[in-house]
Amino acid sequence: MYYTGKMKCLYCGQEYETETMFEGCPKCHNDKFASNLTPVYELPKTDGKKETFMKMFPGSGLEAYRALLPFKGTERFVDLGAGNTALTKLERLGEELEIDLYMKDETRNPTWGHKDRLNAVLINKAMELKAPGVIYASTGNNGASGAAFAAKAGLPCIIMTVTGVNKTLETFMQIYGASLIGVKTTADRWKVLKHMVDENGWYPATNYVVPIVGSNPWAIDGYKVISYELYKQMDVLPDKIVVPICYGDALFGIMKGFSELKEMGFIDKIPQMVSVEDYGPVAKAYNGNLDIIEPVEGWGSVASSMSTIWGTYHSLHALKKSNGLAVSLEGNGEINEAQRELAQKEGVYCESASASTLAGLRRLISEGKIKKGEKVVILITASGVKDTAVTSSYLPDIPESNAKMEDIYSILEATYHIHVNN
Amino acid sequence: MYYTGKMKCLYCGQEYETETMFEGCPKCHNDKFASNLTPVYELPKTDGKKETFMKMFPGSGLEAYRALLPFKGTERFVDLGAGNTALTKLERLGEELEIDLYMKDETRNPTWGHKDRLNAVLINKAMELKAPGVIYASTGNNGASGAAFAAKAGLPCIIMTVTGVNKTLETFMQIYGASLIGVKTTADRWKVLKHMVDENGWYPATNYVVPIVGSNPWAIDGYKVISYELYKQMDVLPDKIVVPICYGDALFGIMKGFSELKEMGFIDKIPQMVSVEDYGPVAKAYNGNLDIIEPVEGWGSVASSMSTIWGTYHSLHALKKSNGLAVSLEGNGEINEAQRELAQKEGVYCESASASTLAGLRRLISEGKIKKGEKVVILITASGVKDTAVTSSYLPDIPESNAKMEDIYSILEATYHIHVNN
Repeated sequence: MYYTGKMKCLYCGQEYETETMFEGCPKCHNDKFASNLTPVYELPKTDGKKETFMKMFPGSGLEAYRALLPFKGTERFVDLGAGNTALTKLERLGEELEIDLYMKDETRNPTWGHKDRLNAVLINKAMELKAPGVIYASTGNNGASGAAFAAKAGLPCIIMTVTGVNKTLETFMQIYGASLIGVKTTADRWKVLKHMVDENGWYPATNYVVPIVGSNPWAIDGYKVISYELYKQMDVLPDKIVVPICYGDALFGIMKGFSELKEMGFIDKIPQMVSVEDYGPVAKAYNGNLDIIEPVEGWGSVASSMSTIWGTYHSLHALKKSNGLAVSLEGNGEINEAQRELAQKEGVYCESASASTLAGLRRLISEGKIKKGEKVVILITASGVKDTAVTSSYLPDIPESNAKMEDIYSILEATYHIHVNN
Repeated sequence: MYYTGKMKCLYCGQEYETETMFEGCPKCHNDKFASNLTPVYELPKTDGKKETFMKMFPGSGLEAYRALLPFKGTERFVDLGAGNTALTKLERLGEELEIDLYMKDETRNPTWGHKDRLNAVLINKAMELKAPGVIYASTGNNGASGAAFAAKAGLPCIIMTVTGVNKTLETFMQIYGASLIGVKTTADRWKVLKHMVDENGWYPATNYVVPIVGSNPWAIDGYKVISYELYKQMDVLPDKIVVPICYGDALFGIMKGFSELKEMGFIDKIPQMVSVEDYGPVAKAYNGNLDIIEPVEGWGSVASSMSTIWGTYHSLHALKKSNGLAVSLEGNGEINEAQRELAQKEGVYCESASASTLAGLRRLISEGKIKKGEKVVILITASGVKDTAVTSSYLPDIPESNAKMEDIYSILEATYHIHVNN
């Protein structure tokens, strides 16, 4: 157990002995700025051999990495079998882009998205703290994932949502038995969360303050496991890891995981973290060398899982600490095209936010910021089947046939350019 | 390489040296009966130790099991990273049912369902045979999975479908770039498949004949990998494996995998295969000790992935050879209830067909056919998010609130029976 029970501010370095501070660092906080707190570990130095890592953290589930997670107790984890996701080489796109390209396929989690990394830790932490339940502000993936883990744990789960956004995702959140309540605005959702946390001791999963700090900082450490898995899966770590960001929980968590591997002596260098946004508040601050992330203008992005005009400090920190890159997009065309390309060239159907990694990659390559032959991992965060409405909006109608072979042949030829030799 | 290039009839034992016989055994075929052919392997005897198996088949991907798959060549497999799916203990349901219950979570595949097992082999076999493309009759999971693998392989893929059945699944099939054509009836789809196979050499994935024989028999061997994984994952194999069946490809493939493990000396006994159907043609034949599977009456099942009034001989064979059990259901109530229970007690949201395993299990336990303390694995075949319409039909509306805390408290109390101490 390397967890100290302490939290440290990423910006001012202030330490706190607390397990219930969810609104960022009070010391350096002001009206326009909130820095993140993150759990502190006292890590051992090692001989740096991969076999030492394998011995220290044997197995492939969450339990394998317990010592690197923010738990004081030794209670067996409630687990849906999160993690251990496939790393797959994307040969055709890699060849086309002239890079060595892989995806970490986070759709292979229990609820088919990377939020399971967060919730696997969150639920167990809520139980360790004997919280009466967990509470989310969510309209989709995170709420559903949390509801699933809460169901497995038998822990009450409240999700403050906005109804009518996406019927599939509503059903997805509801089926696990969570207590969903619809309110009108994000501000309303956050107000209820704050009250339930402060007054009733419910354990919060998601952000509920402005300036925004992102998700529960203990739970964010669940994303570190992605780094540990990549270290196990790859002989040589990638030059760049491309992550779609909203509040940047995964971007920061992955960077933190690598940073710990470095501290323990297993790696010499943290791979460069690359953030992709639709609107780009973090890119604007990072590329402009600012500490304060101002909101930017939106343009109606289809990538609802990542879409925000706000940014968080831990995103900026992850980029700085890894000497990373930040890129933003300019419209839905490139996102949809990336989704189509990933499916049609690599057999990977991911949600729009995940596909934006490819769109961002294309931009960075064309700007010369990612060079020929570099090794790149994109994080595919969630399955495309959770939200097919955007996809179907740009697909053509399916042609109908009377099933006579001349008609079939002519459809194959005209619509699909398949010439059948008969 | 243990594959002989031969096929053998499950019923009459006739052998054929062929790689293009898709309509079952011609020798014992008649108007009411078609038996399946299956690839023949010459398997080595071993010392039966698990470590020997681990050495013979190291790793966790499809490549690990190449010698047990129907390939003559040594070309590297096109692979989306299928398989290596989680085995998860279902503690709460197991306790309630007084059995030792697990799920093999096939939703953790590249297209979030077990059809990836079939298509991983199919696509590579089509490439080995230099087929011009692969062709499916499908309205959902299988077509989408095939389209994904075909995209990864760069192989043309035609899907004969019936439009208007399920918009989500249509988009899912389309996005991978397959050539979809809608026709009116299943008979029309099969007619086109037969023509494309016989006249143009396209490689068929699915059934296209009556009496029905099921999917491509070489591809079905992809399901054997589920057995190999279970052997690796479990110290002691289960007494029963519960599989939802339509044409029974997975049921047969899993049984065949275990039967090979027995032949090689790794196990003494094949676990009993348990088939669950909605309408029950196979249960009727098996429980009535008949070789010919007569069609039965349907009742409008919601479990569209499994729903058929027809059965196949290899289903019957799998049950006989493993001294298995066959059960059928009586209505959608028990299927929906099982789906809700799996989600709310175990955090597992699966499609209706997968949930029917729990409904079948409940029946078999109440009939005394599965006893206290038995070890049971249910096969969870596909994710629930692929088809949320059925689920949403039985879920209540989400309550709306003005976000005032008194209102939130009273909704929590009245709708969700959560009393908040404030």
